[in-house]
Amino acid sequence: MKPNRTLLDLFLEIQRLDRLPRAGFVLRGVSDPESVTEHTWHVLFLVWTLGQRIEEIDVGRAIEIALVHDLAELRIGDLPATSSHYFPEGAKKAAEAAALADVLAPLSERVLRLYDEYQRGASPEARLVKACDKFQLMLKVMVYESWGTGALAEFWDNPDNFPDGGFPLLLDLFEELRARHDAEVRKATVAEMRGDPLFP
Amino acid sequence: MKPNRTLLDLFLEIQRLDRLPRAGFVLRGVSDPESVTEHTWHVLFLVWTLGQRIEEIDVGRAIEIALVHDLAELRIGDLPATSSHYFPEGAKKAAEAAALADVLAPLSERVLRLYDEYQRGASPEARLVKACDKFQLMLKVMVYESWGTGALAEFWDNPDNFPDGGFPLLLDLFEELRARHDAEVRKATVAEMRGDPLFP
Amino acid sequence: MKPNRTLLDLFLEIQRLDRLPRAGFVLRGVSDPESVTEHTWHVLFLVWTLGQRIEEIDVGRAIEIALVHDLAELRIGDLPATSSHYFPEGAKKAAEAAALADVLAPLSERVLRLYDEYQRGASPEARLVKACDKFQLMLKVMVYESWGTGALAEFWDNPDNFPDGGFPLLLDLFEELRARHDAEVRKATVAEMRGDPLFP
Amino acid sequence: MKPNRTLLDLFLEIQRLDRLPRAGFVLRGVSDPESVTEHTWHVLFLVWTLGQRIEEIDVGRAIEIALVHDLAELRIGDLPATSSHYFPEGAKKAAEAAALADVLAPLSERVLRLYDEYQRGASPEARLVKACDKFQLMLKVMVYESWGTGALAEFWDNPDNFPDGGFPLLLDLFEELRARHDAEVRKATVAEMRGDPLFP
Amino acid sequence: MKPNRTLLDLFLEIQRLDRLPRAGFVLRGVSDPESVTEHTWHVLFLVWTLGQRIEEIDVGRAIEIALVHDLAELRIGDLPATSSHYFPEGAKKAAEAAALADVLAPLSERVLRLYDEYQRGASPEARLVKACDKFQLMLKVMVYESWGTGALAEFWDNPDNFPDGGFPLLLDLFEELRARHDAEVRKATVAEMRGDPLFP
Amino acid sequence: MKPNRTLLDLFLEIQRLDRLPRAGFVLRGVSDPESVTEHTWHVLFLVWTLGQRIEEIDVGRAIEIALVHDLAELRIGDLPATSSHYFPEGAKKAAEAAALADVLAPLSERVLRLYDEYQRGASPEARLVKACDKFQLMLKVMVYESWGTGALAEFWDNPDNFPDGGFPLLLDLFEELRARHDAEVRKATVAEMRGDPLFP
Repeated sequence: MKPNRTLLDLFLEIQRLDRLPRAGFVLRGVSDPESVTEHTWHVLFLVWTLGQRIEEIDVGRAIEIALVHDLAELRIGDLPATSSHYFPEGAKKAAEAAALADVLAPLSERVLRLYDEYQRGASPEARLVKACDKFQLMLKVMVYESWGTGALAEFWDNPDNFPDGGFPLLLDLFEELRARHDAEVRKATVAEMRGDPLFP
Repeated sequence: MKPNRTLLDLFLEIQRLDRLPRAGFVLRGVSDPESVTEHTWHVLFLVWTLGQRIEEIDVGRAIEIALVHDLAELRIGDLPATSSHYFPEGAKKAAEAAALADVLAPLSERVLRLYDEYQRGASPEARLVKACDKFQLMLKVMVYESWGTGALAEFWDNPDNFPDGGFPLLLDLFEELRARHDAEVRKATVAEMRGDPLFP
Repeated sequence: MKPNRTLLDLFLEIQRLDRLPRAGFVLRGVSDPESVTEHTWHVLFLVWTLGQRIEEIDVGRAIEIALVHDLAELRIGDLPATSSHYFPEGAKKAAEAAALADVLAPLSERVLRLYDEYQRGASPEARLVKACDKFQLMLKVMVYESWGTGALAEFWDNPDNFPDGGFPLLLDLFEELRARHDAEVRKATVAEMRGDPLFP
Repeated sequence: MKPNRTLLDLFLEIQRLDRLPRAGFVLRGVSDPESVTEHTWHVLFLVWTLGQRIEEIDVGRAIEIALVHDLAELRIGDLPATSSHYFPEGAKKAAEAAALADVLAPLSERVLRLYDEYQRGASPEARLVKACDKFQLMLKVMVYESWGTGALAEFWDNPDNFPDGGFPLLLDLFEELRARHDAEVRKATVAEMRGDPLFP
Repeated sequence: MKPNRTLLDLFLEIQRLDRLPRAGFVLRGVSDPESVTEHTWHVLFLVWTLGQRIEEIDVGRAIEIALVHDLAELRIGDLPATSSHYFPEGAKKAAEAAALADVLAPLSERVLRLYDEYQRGASPEARLVKACDKFQLMLKVMVYESWGTGALAEFWDNPDNFPDGGFPLLLDLFEELRARHDAEVRKATVAEMRGDPLFP
Repeated sequence: MKPNRTLLDLFLEIQRLDRLPRAGFVLRGVSDPESVTEHTWHVLFLVWTLGQRIEEIDVGRAIEIALVHDLAELRIGDLPATSSHYFPEGAKKAAEAAALADVLAPLSERVLRLYDEYQRGASPEARLVKACDKFQLMLKVMVYESWGTGALAEFWDNPDNFPDGGFPLLLDLFEELRARHDAEVRKATVAEMRGDPLFP
């Protein structure tokens, strides 16, 4: 597969991103899990909403990073997290950067520099996108658990899924999410023990 | 989109009803939820079975109402219940009546009068179809909960989902359904507390 | 359904947008059609890419409009285009504005003013988002046709699907897309007539 | 599996019919094919619409036959047409009658006699349901072909799929359907040969 | 449908096996359940792995039986277990043997003799495949339960699902599986009662 | 993710392979494409059938290679073919070997040596599995094209998809498949040009 030649090539290729389901959910049995496109939109929405509330963030730059942060998957696929374990250090990152350059060839080089910044976590904006990338993951885990789909409990036990990027706002939101999750669990348990008309 | 011109136009258009999933289930995360067609068939089956057991019901008329009661969705879509909140009083009903008239244009006007009767709840048959419309909803909620799909607990708490239409037979059936539901919950809870080989 | 109270409520609610398939594709038989979330992301990507190439566009503002332009569907549903025909003039727009206000209650009022601007097409940014909304539609039609899914030919005959918003860049892109589409059709036909190893 | 004991048992069991896809479409590669429930509803709608236009038909009886004509599949499954070839003469019919009796145990025996009448084609109503059963099949084939899904051409070549049951109305409708089908094919071919913007 | 004439006919026909979902899971509400092809592969893997550890087993023969043991379903369909109840004694087995003969017509007769051996349980290899057929069922039940999909509890209560075929190795594995299942249930229950961040 | 500790761990993990769709089909828009498990079963069936007809093949060994040849994807994912372009030479093969070792840890080392043989194409059995791996791909392409799903024409133009492994039997089968494909295309074209009742 070649670098895209025109904007139209690029626009047509990215339509396919919708067919890539997120591997972490697929392998844990979630039915009809979100696509990479859907994940990316939600991250973008978070970055836009939260970026405005954090002084050191240039929202426009953060949005640009969020927009492209997963586009390499069009050519690499959405590798499960376990895959990193089996590739040589840095191989995945290098592959992603090269694939992204081919996908985005009709755009200016500036966006590839932003992506490099993202991979290295080299700016507040990069760190915010990374934090929102995981925050969106846990929001979706919360939703899927309430829908009863997938074996997702382990996500709550993995500290890597709760990176606040040094932003107190993110720290608060992660805590609020976890508190709400714990409350839901407790409510469900008590309801069941009472025989309340609430299904497990 | 125009009124259907011939019977064949009508028959072809209604085949598409199968692709419309029921919005209430979609938005609560049910995987592969029933279509509007499937809902309609089940309502019809209930109306036929129960109508024979209720003296004041003309089963033939009730069946005709049930057959067409959701066909407007072919052109309006299956709006989630929340949508009513945002449209002006009566706008949705008027839109449905107009859409149904276009869909069923090759049939006699009599069926539109039956639909108007249904919207106004103006006869025992209309009330029976309305009651069965909700009874079928709760039957499906019961089944989906046993399958573990969707966040459906709130349906049991909404009194609007238990309209008996003034028919003791429906009242009994709603109560029997709720009792069975509560028993299932209690059985599951006790089994879990004992460590029985029954999954939550 | 109430206005969202906190940011977290909002973030959790919008995860559900992924389950709303685009009605126009559903009713024309596309298998596994894009969700509203996916549509929204693609519009955003177009707005970002093209906005930078058009002098009078404030890209940041255009992106904000694109981000929220379809969120009302969380509460209204994705009504098929035919539905407009059956609702009173303006009823759908008013409902969408009210629903959006409830969804986005935890955000500032500024975003609702942007949405109003969008509905009225009252700024270059609003017109760009509207143009990209349709351009994305036709990109997806092109892709689905190449995949052989859905009865989509009528989309190419509807002039409403080709609004350039007064931007020459969009006009060019629509023409390029249509030219590529025609070329694909011609290539397929010639190949078939020759008996080339290319399937219809 | 036992005969259903109560009406509620019956109502809950039939909800599952929605998960049974029609085997003939599954094995020919149709994506997301209609369920047995959906098929049954469409047959019912045809029987109701057409029955009113045929003098010798008692519509109420015909509707009752249509309502139950495929319910045995809840316990037997939807066997592909090829299966008949491998079972002893009559084994499938006997199995279906026995299964239906268990499913419908809470109803009166009258409905089993109607089903027997249907299997033997022993009345005008039985013949009408049989004719509509195939007419609906061909309507759906027509729709799926326009959507580009499945390898369905052989259906048009099988005379068993065009039984008019001796009713001129059905004969006309089958002919109208075939004529429309042929016209669509011809239109598509000419469009392609001209290079018109219509995809194969 | 005729006997396959060439190897290529056979190879093309069996590709369709992927579209046949396993009826037992479909009717119990599992979302996106395994296909007959997938079931067959897993049985094969078990037979290969375990056969090597059992002295009296000729692994090559056992693999051949496993490879073909469900291919009759291409023409008969995957009948739900309840169907046996309604067909005359032996009708299903005879139908399967006849269908398999047609599917595998281009292969040697030897494989049909192996299938007959399987149906009669007439050799250690036949018994091993039968034991693995059920062991795979229970492995999948375990996985689906952990994913929260389907109403599968009854499978654990049916002794027919735990046939060890007289092989101590299988007996041990069935017991290990059941023990792990019970431990999971107990862990989930205790976690809930403590209000641990583990969802029901 | 760790190496599997027991046979039961291994058996449970491989059940998940069913949820991995084949990336090449996903990205070309095939609806509900085959899973990696399904692919593997079909390769196995081909290896078994064809291996018996080729003198130099030890069928038992070839089957063992086929059984495990794609199991690394459980941890690496099914990377699209384009991904190879972006990883350093050999990185993917090394990752696959390491992942397979972890998946199959409870089995003997012999199977890893067979896999290494497969990756290097170092034996007639390895070459047969590789040839069948592609032959199955083209069989499925043929079937999907007849079902009208996916943009698959390019597969027929890629010589890498037609490796005969030096076996005349495979060469013949590839040619027979291509001839049948060309004949289908020609038949469809002629039918359309005549306006025959066969849909494009």
